[in-house]
Amino acid sequence: MDKSTARSKFLDVFPELVSDLETVTKEYGMPQDAIEWFKRNLSYNTPGGKLNRGLSVVDTYALLKGYKSFDDFEPEEYKKTAILGWAVELLQAYFLVADDMMDKSITRRGQPCWYRVDGVNEIAINDSFMLEAAIYVLLKKYFRKESYYVDLLELFHEVTFQTELGQLLDLLTAPEDHVDLSKFSLSKHSFIVTFKTAYYSFYLPVALAMYMAGVADEKDLKQAQDVLIPLGEYFQIQDDYLDCFGKPEDIGKIGTDILDNKCSWVINTALKICTPEQRAILDENYGRKDSAKEAKCKQIFRDLKIDQLYLEYEERIATELRSKIANVDESRGFKGEVLTSFLNKIYKRQK
Amino acid sequence: MDKSTARSKFLDVFPELVSDLETVTKEYGMPQDAIEWFKRNLSYNTPGGKLNRGLSVVDTYALLKGYKSFDDFEPEEYKKTAILGWAVELLQAYFLVADDMMDKSITRRGQPCWYRVDGVNEIAINDSFMLEAAIYVLLKKYFRKESYYVDLLELFHEVTFQTELGQLLDLLTAPEDHVDLSKFSLSKHSFIVTFKTAYYSFYLPVALAMYMAGVADEKDLKQAQDVLIPLGEYFQIQDDYLDCFGKPEDIGKIGTDILDNKCSWVINTALKICTPEQRAILDENYGRKDSAKEAKCKQIFRDLKIDQLYLEYEERIATELRSKIANVDESRGFKGEVLTSFLNKIYKRQK
Repeated sequence: MDKSTARSKFLDVFPELVSDLETVTKEYGMPQDAIEWFKRNLSYNTPGGKLNRGLSVVDTYALLKGYKSFDDFEPEEYKKTAILGWAVELLQAYFLVADDMMDKSITRRGQPCWYRVDGVNEIAINDSFMLEAAIYVLLKKYFRKESYYVDLLELFHEVTFQTELGQLLDLLTAPEDHVDLSKFSLSKHSFIVTFKTAYYSFYLPVALAMYMAGVADEKDLKQAQDVLIPLGEYFQIQDDYLDCFGKPEDIGKIGTDILDNKCSWVINTALKICTPEQRAILDENYGRKDSAKEAKCKQIFRDLKIDQLYLEYEERIATELRSKIANVDESRGFKGEVLTSFLNKIYKRQK
Repeated sequence: MDKSTARSKFLDVFPELVSDLETVTKEYGMPQDAIEWFKRNLSYNTPGGKLNRGLSVVDTYALLKGYKSFDDFEPEEYKKTAILGWAVELLQAYFLVADDMMDKSITRRGQPCWYRVDGVNEIAINDSFMLEAAIYVLLKKYFRKESYYVDLLELFHEVTFQTELGQLLDLLTAPEDHVDLSKFSLSKHSFIVTFKTAYYSFYLPVALAMYMAGVADEKDLKQAQDVLIPLGEYFQIQDDYLDCFGKPEDIGKIGTDILDNKCSWVINTALKICTPEQRAILDENYGRKDSAKEAKCKQIFRDLKIDQLYLEYEERIATELRSKIANVDESRGFKGEVLTSFLNKIYKRQK
C-alpha cells in the first residue's frame, strides 16, 4: 500500500475527530472561546509528526486481515482502524506537550512548543490533560459496543502508566541541570527506553490492531510483546547511536544528547568499559552546555569504539529478533509478518 | 456513624493502596529510587485534605444499603467502598498538583505545594499524571470482575474530562495576570463551577457508591445528578460568598478572590446590577494585587448588598433542592436521604 496515500487517508480522518470532540463540548454547553481553544490544542499538537505510530495501527490491521489495498477495507472499518491510530497519536501528543514543559524545550516538529505559543504558558498543562481525555471520548463513541472495548481501555491505561514510569525514571536519572553519572547504568537505560518509548510506540499500536482484527489471544499478545519490546529498545538505542555518530544531513538535526546530559546508550556503554582516567574526563565534561566539553566526550566515545560496539549490538539483536519471529506460532491467526515489517523499517536505518 | 471513626477507618486503607501500587511497579522491575519517589508523591498529595469527597462515597453507600454502623460492612466490602473513595481523592490530587503549578500557588493544605518541594519542580507534571494513572491500576485490581467495572471507568473518564473543561474555561476567563471583566458573566460562572467542581466533588462520589450498591439505573443516576449538580454550584457560590463576606476566624483563611481576579459569584452578581460608575471602579480595581484596590471593590459589593442577595439565593436554592428531593422516586432503591445528607452539610455553612 502506497505510503503517501496511507498518510493522506489517515490525515483525512482527523478533522472528523476534532468535530466529534467539538460536538461533545457543545452538548455540554461550553462557551465558544473555550471550544475554539480546545480545537486549536488538538490541531496544533496531534498531527504534524511522522505519524508512524498511528499509521502502524492501520498497517498491522491490514496485514492481519490479509488486505492488499485500501479498497479491501469497508469505509467504516478503515475509519475505526484510523481512530485507534489517532488515539495513539493523541497519547503521544499528551506526553509531548508535557515533556516539552518539563524539558524546557523550544521547538517541536518545526514549530514552537505549545507552552511557548503566545498566551498558552501554564494552560498547556491542562491542555495536555485534555489530549488524553479525548482518547476516551473517542473510544467510547466508536468502540463502546465492541466486545474488546474494555480491553482497549485497560491497554491505554496500562501503557499510559508504563510511559509515565519511564519518564519518571528518566527525569530522576538525568536531570538537565545536575550531572551525576553514577546514577547511570545500562540497566536503567533499558528500563527507561522500554517504559518511556517501547510500550506506547511499538506494542500499543500492534495490540490495538490485534484487538480490532480479533487476533488477540493472550498468547498472541505475548508473542507480539516479546518481540516488540526489545525491538523498541533497539530502536531507541539506534536513536542514541545516531544522535552521536549519525550525519546531521542524514538524521536531519544536530545531536544534543551529550550537551543535554541524556541517559543515552552511548554514555552508558562507555561508562561500562572506560578506564578510570576516561571516566574522570566524562564526569567533568558530560552534560555541560559547552561544545568543547562535548568534543572531549565524543573523542572518548571514538577511542572506546562505541560505534563499532553499536554495529555488533545491531547484528546481534536483529539476528535474535529474526529468530524469534521465525518461531512465531501463527495457529490462532497472528502473523510474524507484522513483526518483520517493523524490524525491516528499523534495521540499518540511517535517519 | 461517628465522624472521627469514619475518617480514621478511611485513612487506614490508604497505606495498603500505596503498597498495591508499589507492588505493581516492583513487578515491572522499576528501580528503587523511582519507586520511593512515586510513593512519596502519593503520600504527599493524596491524604491531608478534608477527605470530604472520599468519605462521602462510604457515607452514601452505607445510606443506600441501610447500614447504621461500620459493623454492618463486611471487611472486604468496606475496603472496596473506601477504595472508590480514595480513587476520588486521587483524582482530586491529580487536579490540585497541576492547578497549583498553573496558578503558581505557594501552599496547599498547610504545606508547600508539591512542585515547590525541594528537587521536584517540573517533575510535578509527570507526578500529577501518575496520580491519575493510579486510579486505573486500583480499579483494575479491585473491580475488574464486577459487572459495573466498565461503568466505573467511563464515569471516571467523563468526570475527568468535564473537570478539565471547567478548568480550561476558568483559565481563559480569569487569568491572574490580565483583568478583563467583560469576559465574566453569571452564565460562565455557572459553567465553570459546575464543570470544574460539581461533577467530581458531588456527582462522582455518589454515582460510585450507587454502582457499588447496585442502585444505578440510568433514571436514578439522573435523579442524583439533577440535585447534586445544582447543589455543587450552590456549594461553590457559598464558597465565593464566604471568601468575601465570611469571617477569617470562621473560614480559617483570608479571602483573596478579589486580589486574584477570580471569576467569583460575587463579582459576577455585582457586574450584573452595578451602575456604570461602579463598573468603572471595578474595572480599575478588581484583580489587582493591592489591598487598597481590594477595599474599593469590597465597598461596592457592600453598597450593592451582595451579601443580602446571597442570602436570598441560598433560601431559594435550598427550597428548590428540598422540593426536588421530596419528589425523588425511590422505587428502584435510590434514597432521597443521600441527597438530604449533602444538603444539610452545606446549608447555612459558615466555614
